[in-house]
Amino acid sequence: MSEKIVTAAVLVIGDEILSGRTKDRNIGYIAEYLANIGVDLREARVVPDIEDEIVAALNALRARYDYVFTTGGIGPTHDDITADAVAKAFGAAIDEDPRALALMRTRYKSDELNAARRRMARMPVGAELVDNPVSPPPGFRIGNVVVMAGVPAVMQAMLDTAVKTIETGTKMTVQTIDAGAIPEGRYAEALGAIAAAHGETIIGSYPSYADGSFRNQIVVRGRDPAKVATTQAAVEAMLAEIRAAAKPV
Amino acid sequence: MSEKIVTAAVLVIGDEILSGRTKDRNIGYIAEYLANIGVDLREARVVPDIEDEIVAALNALRARYDYVFTTGGIGPTHDDITADAVAKAFGAAIDEDPRALALMRTRYKSDELNAARRRMARMPVGAELVDNPVSPPPGFRIGNVVVMAGVPAVMQAMLDTAVKTIETGTKMTVQTIDAGAIPEGRYAEALGAIAAAHGETIIGSYPSYADGSFRNQIVVRGRDPAKVATTQAAVEAMLAEIRAAAKPV
Repeated sequence: MSEKIVTAAVLVIGDEILSGRTKDRNIGYIAEYLANIGVDLREARVVPDIEDEIVAALNALRARYDYVFTTGGIGPTHDDITADAVAKAFGAAIDEDPRALALMRTRYKSDELNAARRRMARMPVGAELVDNPVSPPPGFRIGNVVVMAGVPAVMQAMLDTAVKTIETGTKMTVQTIDAGAIPEGRYAEALGAIAAAHGETIIGSYPSYADGSFRNQIVVRGRDPAKVATTQAAVEAMLAEIRAAAKPV
Repeated sequence: MSEKIVTAAVLVIGDEILSGRTKDRNIGYIAEYLANIGVDLREARVVPDIEDEIVAALNALRARYDYVFTTGGIGPTHDDITADAVAKAFGAAIDEDPRALALMRTRYKSDELNAARRRMARMPVGAELVDNPVSPPPGFRIGNVVVMAGVPAVMQAMLDTAVKTIETGTKMTVQTIDAGAIPEGRYAEALGAIAAAHGETIIGSYPSYADGSFRNQIVVRGRDPAKVATTQAAVEAMLAEIRAAAKPV
């Protein structure tokens, strides 16, 4: 089958994540969202509200992946420096975008649209708006970089809008096989042999821990559903053999 | 006052985070934990289970920050490649560590300690063990890099052990001021002026969204508690002024 691969990175911008004040929920959300539309998230980074850090991370990521999704730093306060940093990364001028301003004029009363709020209409020249139904100011996209809010509800609404403009690839087929209480160490060698024999699929083994004991899941991923099914069958047969061996006759 | 700054980065290793299967809880936990002991988390990255990616990210981070904490990829299965990647990053040999093996011998029955489980005793030569009470195999530390499990309960136990061996700096004092329903755009200009006048502290403004409306908090951070208190007072006076102006006489 013909496979198309589209890649992405997430850049989370915000002191509040690195200080522990706010627990990031955007990386996981975007990861799952992109997987569901056929975009592979390949890397995520969290950087502080420091322009040089944002510029360096953004330039590293946008050169390497098809898309970069940023979250955070596009509000009206002094610590919101993402638009300026993105403009600097692209070597673009930054200015008040007339479309963004027009949109905001319809959403703020005239005495509300003060200088601080007007700052949110500033975007790198060449950007396209990424609107959302949750908050008045839009995000934007420039080149392969989509710039979104940090507040999860707003980010999620912007992502819904932004993905309409991006290319997507062949979606990964994912099968999860429950290994239950069989310890990883019990099936690791056999699973490694299956992984080596089925190179077109990716196999992961994931323990979780609750109430003093581990339980494990094995995940098989790949772009060709038939190959994923073949690998899945091999994993299930291997686990069945272990379960049978463990049972008294 | 004399201020000592100690910095760190987190490197999360695992396809399961990037595919959206598992939502990372380690970055936020480590961020908060380090803040509480006087270590500044400056960056976090998530990379897939690909050796070259782990090596490149680890070398970038360990050169730049005082400590790097990695999570994930130290189990017994084929997708657990962190120990090898860390050895490669350090240009160190990797071998079965006799102390790790001795520890594991006390925790596994002899017929349980198979080849796959013994793999978990493999560490870069020169590493020190980072033990934990939750799972049999230890993590390890080499140079400024602490290598921990990905399962949160195990990672947390290893972190408790690892931090006993690291230097810590002057703890940030953090004050959170509730701005309630006052919109960010209403106080942004005044807050920016306060931030510019109080450069020894860091001010962040953080909206959250629930049930159709935004609420905001302003956070003041700094290593000198007296300066944080001064900035906090200025922010509170500013908000009081806005609240007074909004009230009918």
